[in-house]
Amino acid sequence: MKNKVGRELPDRVEGYKEIQPYAGAFESLGDRVKTSVKVKSYVPGTKKLLSSIDEAIEKTGLKDGMTVSFHHHLRNGDQVVNQVMAAIAAKGIKDIHLAASGLFAVHEPLVKLIEDGVITKVTTSTFNPGPVAKAITAGKLKKPAVLMSHGGRPRAIESGDLHIDVAFIGAPTCDAFGNLNGTQGKSACGYVSYAYADAMYADRVVAVTDNLVPYPCCPIEITQEKVDFVVEVESIGDRNGIVSGSTKITEDPVRLKIASDTAKLVDSAGYIKQDMSFQTGASGTALAVASIVRDIMKERNIVGSFGLGGIHNYFVQMLEEGLFRALFDTQCFDLEAIASAGRNENHIAISGSQYANPHNRGSIVNNLDVVILGATEIDTDFNVNVITGSNGVIMGASGGHSDCAAGSKLAIIVANLTRKSFCVVRDKVTTVTTPGDTVDAFVTEHGIAINPRRQDLLEAVKDAGLPLVDIHDLKALGESLVGEQTPADLTDKIVAVVEYRDGTVMDVVKMPKEAAI
Amino acid sequence: MKNKVGRELPDRVEGYKEIQPYAGAFESLGDRVKTSVKVKSYVPGTKKLLSSIDEAIEKTGLKDGMTVSFHHHLRNGDQVVNQVMAAIAAKGIKDIHLAASGLFAVHEPLVKLIEDGVITKVTTSTFNPGPVAKAITAGKLKKPAVLMSHGGRPRAIESGDLHIDVAFIGAPTCDAFGNLNGTQGKSACGYVSYAYADAMYADRVVAVTDNLVPYPCCPIEITQEKVDFVVEVESIGDRNGIVSGSTKITEDPVRLKIASDTAKLVDSAGYIKQDMSFQTGASGTALAVASIVRDIMKERNIVGSFGLGGIHNYFVQMLEEGLFRALFDTQCFDLEAIASAGRNENHIAISGSQYANPHNRGSIVNNLDVVILGATEIDTDFNVNVITGSNGVIMGASGGHSDCAAGSKLAIIVANLTRKSFCVVRDKVTTVTTPGDTVDAFVTEHGIAINPRRQDLLEAVKDAGLPLVDIHDLKALGESLVGEQTPADLTDKIVAVVEYRDGTVMDVVKMPKEAAI
Repeated sequence: MKNKVGRELPDRVEGYKEIQPYAGAFESLGDRVKTSVKVKSYVPGTKKLLSSIDEAIEKTGLKDGMTVSFHHHLRNGDQVVNQVMAAIAAKGIKDIHLAASGLFAVHEPLVKLIEDGVITKVTTSTFNPGPVAKAITAGKLKKPAVLMSHGGRPRAIESGDLHIDVAFIGAPTCDAFGNLNGTQGKSACGYVSYAYADAMYADRVVAVTDNLVPYPCCPIEITQEKVDFVVEVESIGDRNGIVSGSTKITEDPVRLKIASDTAKLVDSAGYIKQDMSFQTGASGTALAVASIVRDIMKERNIVGSFGLGGIHNYFVQMLEEGLFRALFDTQCFDLEAIASAGRNENHIAISGSQYANPHNRGSIVNNLDVVILGATEIDTDFNVNVITGSNGVIMGASGGHSDCAAGSKLAIIVANLTRKSFCVVRDKVTTVTTPGDTVDAFVTEHGIAINPRRQDLLEAVKDAGLPLVDIHDLKALGESLVGEQTPADLTDKIVAVVEYRDGTVMDVVKMPKEAAI
Repeated sequence: MKNKVGRELPDRVEGYKEIQPYAGAFESLGDRVKTSVKVKSYVPGTKKLLSSIDEAIEKTGLKDGMTVSFHHHLRNGDQVVNQVMAAIAAKGIKDIHLAASGLFAVHEPLVKLIEDGVITKVTTSTFNPGPVAKAITAGKLKKPAVLMSHGGRPRAIESGDLHIDVAFIGAPTCDAFGNLNGTQGKSACGYVSYAYADAMYADRVVAVTDNLVPYPCCPIEITQEKVDFVVEVESIGDRNGIVSGSTKITEDPVRLKIASDTAKLVDSAGYIKQDMSFQTGASGTALAVASIVRDIMKERNIVGSFGLGGIHNYFVQMLEEGLFRALFDTQCFDLEAIASAGRNENHIAISGSQYANPHNRGSIVNNLDVVILGATEIDTDFNVNVITGSNGVIMGASGGHSDCAAGSKLAIIVANLTRKSFCVVRDKVTTVTTPGDTVDAFVTEHGIAINPRRQDLLEAVKDAGLPLVDIHDLKALGESLVGEQTPADLTDKIVAVVEYRDGTVMDVVKMPKEAAI
């Protein structure tokens, strides 16, 4: 069958639930049901503090075939996943479904567990290039990985599509009854937002902490009545690993031009105005856009309503300068953001569901004016790939990409048109992450392509002196510079299923021939 | 059938669910299920702001036979219940189940709606003496009222026992997408904790505000993805009505003696110590106990872990003096507490479920050391009545009474042994609210009775010079002073069912003959 973005999908995928093909960004809305939750209720006097992760595995009844979950706010510094999965493996437990909100290079030890059949399925929504992504690309998992968005994950948990048997929550600060926060302690990683759904819906919940404090832990992000057990460990990770890539404004002149044109587009479209809201990633180009927007806001005495998403130092500065009334934070991208979370009352933790779950009464992405997003590829229908390289190797997951594109009023993709022998515009992207119907503009060093579906936007900016260009012409230009692009050479083996935020299937990832074993 | 406290219950009560007799305070724990939730999911751009309560009634599809809910943090100043119920009545809607977390004298207009069949059932957990309580006592409701505890109400909502069709949430501050708080605005009433379960589990949720602020409302107590609609009204009530009774330390020498003996009991039992936790109501006697405990803590440089429950100015002072690390707040009892909620980071809002729901992984009452509670009657088995007077007229509901008694390490009842011709100790209380198995001591002006089940407590305080006395002797003494007590003269008509916090039936309230029509 073909879905709404023209992807051919098999009728079924072994090891994956029944396929619902993607049918349009807002086709699944309306009446929805959040699933029931199992809890063990405790008599007064019940102790939750256990002596080890081992004991937690025993007490939670963790066994073959179960789903265990983790959050990723310590990013490339996380040691909770590795410690817990090693303990699970040491007990001889097999066939685990690892539902981590994010996986990073630091999780390399999981590759062996995948090879050994300890882990047979992975579900994630943030994925950094590295050994685990490569192992999945190479088809080492028994069942295909499921790649979700940041809103799709809590949707899946809340709907029951993703049932968690045991959630392990890395807790930078925690008391003996499970009240915990992410903003204090030697391993403070910022708000642990993506773990909120796990704590609410998992059958059993274990807090793993390296900073056990007297009762009650204050402030409290996840409250005691959701936590079954608490385990103290020496270290839950290294917070310096949170900042993985560059989180500085780019100094590259080509990227600075892209940023400048992007800001000009946002401004001429009328979005730099009182009460504006804004999300950028932490890439050098996105931060450069934020920096220009910030200057314009200051110059015109504009106060925006909120900055959203992964929070970085530039947004903290904008909050503290009074340019935003609030920051809505799902994760901290740098140590300055973590400090701000502990300091600024209006730097507010939000759950993944509150952020971007499409199946509730309006998540915050629905209030978002402008989002600046990246791409590994974009096609002439404006479909965007952030999951695989053009060689078919997995190097990411949606994160908030498809969520923000769907919710925002103006979703802009920024990317260099060409890199070495590579052109970012394709006839068809290798993997669709974000449907073109939710993408409004694409800004490159060679011009700005506006999605023809946004005639209103084209009309609004037509006299602004922007270098507007048809996306087909961008493709032709790019190919004239670096040569025609050949699609990835893929096998038929499906190694991952790409879920849209509503749980429908947007695409599948097939194993590249060069990764075939 | 007879339940565990010896109350004879009918096999069934017309208009009430199947009766599960009370079987012991901790007999219903173990595996429990929180029910599924229906939501309407919204496309970006959906507006929530409606023009009137009338429109909200239409948009939510409110109709005959439905359950509507309210919170009671504006207490005797609330105008949300009256406004919404008047609008419902004006539309000709009948047979409404009113599930308000509390009802007060200010809700007198409901009596006519009960008489007219607009309201046919009432469920509540805070009840002040007054017209509505009298109307229910007089059997004017078609179905018996259900009286719950503060922990029992969220348990019932979360388990599905109490399904809410439409929740109306009085919101002292709110934005147009439903982010709201109770601590700001002209009608600031303090945290709206008891509405949290309603917002999470009701089919439709309406925020009613008299302070609509630019997006986003900060801080946020109830978040937008839980709210369907927002209605702006001129006033949600008068916050001066929050302080209904006296919230000052008693000056009555008899009560001061009770308070002093109570503090001495707590101290000699070893509970005034580092990390102690404490709950009192806002009665003059309870506040006098708090005041003495505070002096002892200061004198010994003791830092307690938390003060709990309805928060009053004395607890705020203790927090600000460093005598508690935190206050856990379910409602503010005075304006000073409201101001503190907005000012003190460690004055923390907690949901009713977090406070006292027995069917979760340990609510905060389970961490409570000492609670000081009142009584209208107590029997020689230490069962306590706070629901009816000895004439059978309803004058209260459990509130947190049975919750704290069950969770705390030391639950002390304080009361004058006699008032006029009345003796508080009975062979059998008129209505059981709190089972004697969860009550540890009873302090009167004529001595302290310790529950014989607490031999450890008797042992601990035996040399402290306390005026210890057997509860049977207290009864005999009381009756010798004011004469023998006669039980209320009751009809067979059941006007209310008293649910224990776990949803089992503790007792039924029968219409007194003097209230018979």
